[in-house]
Amino acid sequence: MLTVTFRFDTATAVTPIAQKNGLTTFSAEVFDGWDITGNANGGYLLAMMGRAMQQHSGRRDPFTVTAHYLAPAPAGPLEIEVDTVKTGKLVTTMNATMRRGDRNIMRVLGAWGEMAAVEPQIVTATPPDLPSYEQCTSRNSDGGEFTIGLLQNVTNRLHPDDSTFISGTPSGTAQMRGWIHFPDDRPIDTLALLLAVDAMPPPLFNLPYEKGWVPTLELTVHVRAVPVGKRLACSFRTKVVQGGLLEEDGEIWDESGTLVALSRQMAVAPRVV
Amino acid sequence: MLTVTFRFDTATAVTPIAQKNGLTTFSAEVFDGWDITGNANGGYLLAMMGRAMQQHSGRRDPFTVTAHYLAPAPAGPLEIEVDTVKTGKLVTTMNATMRRGDRNIMRVLGAWGEMAAVEPQIVTATPPDLPSYEQCTSRNSDGGEFTIGLLQNVTNRLHPDDSTFISGTPSGTAQMRGWIHFPDDRPIDTLALLLAVDAMPPPLFNLPYEKGWVPTLELTVHVRAVPVGKRLACSFRTKVVQGGLLEEDGEIWDESGTLVALSRQMAVAPRVV
Repeated sequence: MLTVTFRFDTATAVTPIAQKNGLTTFSAEVFDGWDITGNANGGYLLAMMGRAMQQHSGRRDPFTVTAHYLAPAPAGPLEIEVDTVKTGKLVTTMNATMRRGDRNIMRVLGAWGEMAAVEPQIVTATPPDLPSYEQCTSRNSDGGEFTIGLLQNVTNRLHPDDSTFISGTPSGTAQMRGWIHFPDDRPIDTLALLLAVDAMPPPLFNLPYEKGWVPTLELTVHVRAVPVGKRLACSFRTKVVQGGLLEEDGEIWDESGTLVALSRQMAVAPRVV
Repeated sequence: MLTVTFRFDTATAVTPIAQKNGLTTFSAEVFDGWDITGNANGGYLLAMMGRAMQQHSGRRDPFTVTAHYLAPAPAGPLEIEVDTVKTGKLVTTMNATMRRGDRNIMRVLGAWGEMAAVEPQIVTATPPDLPSYEQCTSRNSDGGEFTIGLLQNVTNRLHPDDSTFISGTPSGTAQMRGWIHFPDDRPIDTLALLLAVDAMPPPLFNLPYEKGWVPTLELTVHVRAVPVGKRLACSFRTKVVQGGLLEEDGEIWDESGTLVALSRQMAVAPRVV
């Protein structure tokens, strides 16, 4: 029997090393190739935290997860601590901390359970109007002034109307639509959604803003269904840049056309150019 | 000199009773008249938590705050504990717990700082198209099958197109727009925004769902500007009801037409009727 190990699972692996007073401590490692200019991508770190929360609670799916990012994380070992806030019938609510030595890297508050089979009742949101995967624009890891190691492990295929920023011509609309999939064809599960919500270029790259690291202060993900297939159709929009901060809203759809996640983040706005 | 004490400030007062290892413990009290059928409104509890976080950190404004609701809270005394996760230049990140005896009522993760004077750069969101305050529909505290004590302390004036559910004729669109203000004319500040994001009827009341308590699992608020004036123009929408859970998105504008808050919550969907 051949067991395939996908790169996402290797790179987000966590190992329990201690358990005390209901708190589980895990060791983990930030891998190379999941970064933006040397610092681990926020979605990648959130997926790693998610795996620790999944193991701690024994519950499969994130329902709603909020991460506050406190310090950047280059490649290397770190620790994750998870404790239970409340075990309920529907969800287990947990608090989680990621740290490296004395340095807090991120803090997470989230609720995990078992997502019911999808019975959409009302969905007025609509999937993005994307050309086929093949007709969308590849993006390589050389972002020009900065390097996107993450693209070695997460493929972006952008809507041609939204990818013009790559050649220096922002579209003028703070929108970024496209497909996401793993280059080794790993199927998408609810854990991978935690990565996906932060794995495309900021919509603000399509306005005259500096292109570079956009530091996330806080990211909240609502998982809305167990995804099927290997590709996600994604749509991200920024509708408010104000007081030096931006909001970015995401909607993610699976191959069956089901809305599988909503996301929103607050980030520090880059400089106008 | 006459000092006016507004009811919101009295009802959200917190008193520090202990400080140890960077953790502040506050005593507080859930007042009557801020409830839905006897259980305190989630926005009211979040404002109370917010006041404790404001006092603990010495920082004025919530930037992004996430609450997980763990148990209902009828009127009566309770305790709030706040500890600092990280003190940064832009924000202080805090963890807060509300409990009554051994029972956890809510858990909050939030970042507080001083919101910059508003220099809107991009705002593609638009204020709701509301008739004047006088032309909007009053809502009294008798919700028919349930009692909305909260309306004794927070005035709702609903868009006439969205208030038809009151007389048993839902509009058919999961939308709820209207004005919010305090009956004692308390000016709106960033703390009051934490209440406002959960102080209007659920948009789902305008679809054929049971009208009653809609338990919030998680609520995240992004404060986007320091509000001016005494009235807020609000717009709430639900675009996804799936797997027994709903999302509700809010946009809140002040009297000067500035977008002052964005909110999103995940709640348990009521039954279809």
